[in-house]
Amino acid sequence: MIPNGQYAVGVDMGATTIKTGAVDLQGRLLDHVSVETMADRGPHRVLEQLVSSVEEIFRTHPREACAGIGIGSPGVVRVEEGSVHYPPNFADWTDVEVLKEVRRTFSIPLAIENDANCAAIAEARYGAGREHKDFLFVIWGTGIGGGVILDRRIHRGPSGAAGEVGHVTIDYNGPQCNCGSRGCIESYLGQRYLSQRTKDKLAEYLRLGKQSALRDLVGGDLDAIEPALISRAAEAGDSFSIEVLREAGELLGVALASVFNVLDLHVAVIGGGISAVPRFVFDEMERSARERVLAPHRPDLRIVRALLQNDAGIIGAASLVL
Amino acid sequence: MIPNGQYAVGVDMGATTIKTGAVDLQGRLLDHVSVETMADRGPHRVLEQLVSSVEEIFRTHPREACAGIGIGSPGVVRVEEGSVHYPPNFADWTDVEVLKEVRRTFSIPLAIENDANCAAIAEARYGAGREHKDFLFVIWGTGIGGGVILDRRIHRGPSGAAGEVGHVTIDYNGPQCNCGSRGCIESYLGQRYLSQRTKDKLAEYLRLGKQSALRDLVGGDLDAIEPALISRAAEAGDSFSIEVLREAGELLGVALASVFNVLDLHVAVIGGGISAVPRFVFDEMERSARERVLAPHRPDLRIVRALLQNDAGIIGAASLVL
Repeated sequence: MIPNGQYAVGVDMGATTIKTGAVDLQGRLLDHVSVETMADRGPHRVLEQLVSSVEEIFRTHPREACAGIGIGSPGVVRVEEGSVHYPPNFADWTDVEVLKEVRRTFSIPLAIENDANCAAIAEARYGAGREHKDFLFVIWGTGIGGGVILDRRIHRGPSGAAGEVGHVTIDYNGPQCNCGSRGCIESYLGQRYLSQRTKDKLAEYLRLGKQSALRDLVGGDLDAIEPALISRAAEAGDSFSIEVLREAGELLGVALASVFNVLDLHVAVIGGGISAVPRFVFDEMERSARERVLAPHRPDLRIVRALLQNDAGIIGAASLVL
Repeated sequence: MIPNGQYAVGVDMGATTIKTGAVDLQGRLLDHVSVETMADRGPHRVLEQLVSSVEEIFRTHPREACAGIGIGSPGVVRVEEGSVHYPPNFADWTDVEVLKEVRRTFSIPLAIENDANCAAIAEARYGAGREHKDFLFVIWGTGIGGGVILDRRIHRGPSGAAGEVGHVTIDYNGPQCNCGSRGCIESYLGQRYLSQRTKDKLAEYLRLGKQSALRDLVGGDLDAIEPALISRAAEAGDSFSIEVLREAGELLGVALASVFNVLDLHVAVIGGGISAVPRFVFDEMERSARERVLAPHRPDLRIVRALLQNDAGIIGAASLVL
């Protein structure tokens, strides 16, 4: 049996799934469960789902050995109040005192933090950021988010939203972004945008009579294009897909250079679903960012892939109480 | 006679002029002197000039009443070491231990900080930032620089360079910037760039047979265009100059929106020579930035003019030891 305080529970509260796991003192995910978030059913139901996922962990891990429960949540998280404001895609959710609600069931240490910040903390303590005291963490997936690690600790900013790299503009006349602005890097490289851009480009490419393995990979259905398939085609040597991802790396490098200059950083750790792109995309990001940052940031500029990937959210949440 | 510790000396070390003043406990500049920097003569000569400027202050203010000397310097300043690395436009200057050198002459408390950070500190303590706990300070002049105030204190970043708003890209295909990148906001709005852009636009405008009071203001010599004259023409109702400055405000707003999103801020204080533009330019910056930042930053977004202007450097430097 695990003695008292030998593991913590981490909760990664997504809009679709709540992933909850037991994490040991070395930041290893021992195991985890997934439950539906039921975000469309309102906060009360979501919190019931959350509590039940933790109880499921306690069925196989002794409650007495648990150091506490950490929660990573989307939206604006007020860490001291333990409350979550307006998480996107959660129905009827304005301002909910999550920790107060969870405390009704569990009288052990509780903590809450923004989900991107949780993932950043996990990479800083246990992942690709271990060798970097200061870095920008980027989540490249449905959207593009981020977290800032300064001196090995999360830098939250005045309202906990520091590091929103996805809404850095790279062209003020660029594509419309869902945030209301134009030319945000997310409006080029967020999952839906990247897929759509690639579809449009491929249609044009095929019209010119050129060939691409990406077309074959989706059986001619260009609506089925998604980043994982572009990566697969690129890895198989498809020059169209290589060019799409090379440009993606270049553009992300542009945004990172702006962020590095503003935050006085020179290292980025890239996680999220789309960060599974081939290695050459990282080289391209690094080249592009190095060309653009101020001279003092150039020599040590590094852009590396996150290590913990899908587990970063749970591990980072658990580490809030470790 | 002023009792001990009733004022401090602030030194604003520019590439052309060293401005040194006596600043009282309320942050008021009592008086100041200017000496040539002689930056082309190497660090030794520059430090002699600096020391002589302080001695000039001590001729009219009792040395015994001085709390210390604070120095604001361009370049990368290592605050703890008291050293300055590679200040732009200073000859033969790689890495100089400024405080160690100054301490040979003055055995009173000494401190040093980056010059933009000094101005930010001055605005935070005594200027337009007093009512804002967290804000971005921007110097809009020859170049565009900045400093970040978080919780009323300077946020230096890992190497003291946080807040380099001038090298935020607003169009990755934009004009070449002197930093080596493209489309930095400085490459649109730094003094030289803004003047050149305006000259090119005015030449085109005149070619189309249109009239502008700006042309008359420079007696037809378009090379004489500079921001102060564009402002003067705009204030006199010249529609060409109004449009030039309106666009400048819009573009600066684009860069500020990116910076606000990354730093989790919603207030900017704009100083530097060009910040003497008419009020409508600030309205335009605010409109542009508000349209582009993430929703939580919108309601309280404010872009205001710095209060201390040319004195901010001296006052901020002095306040390092106050």
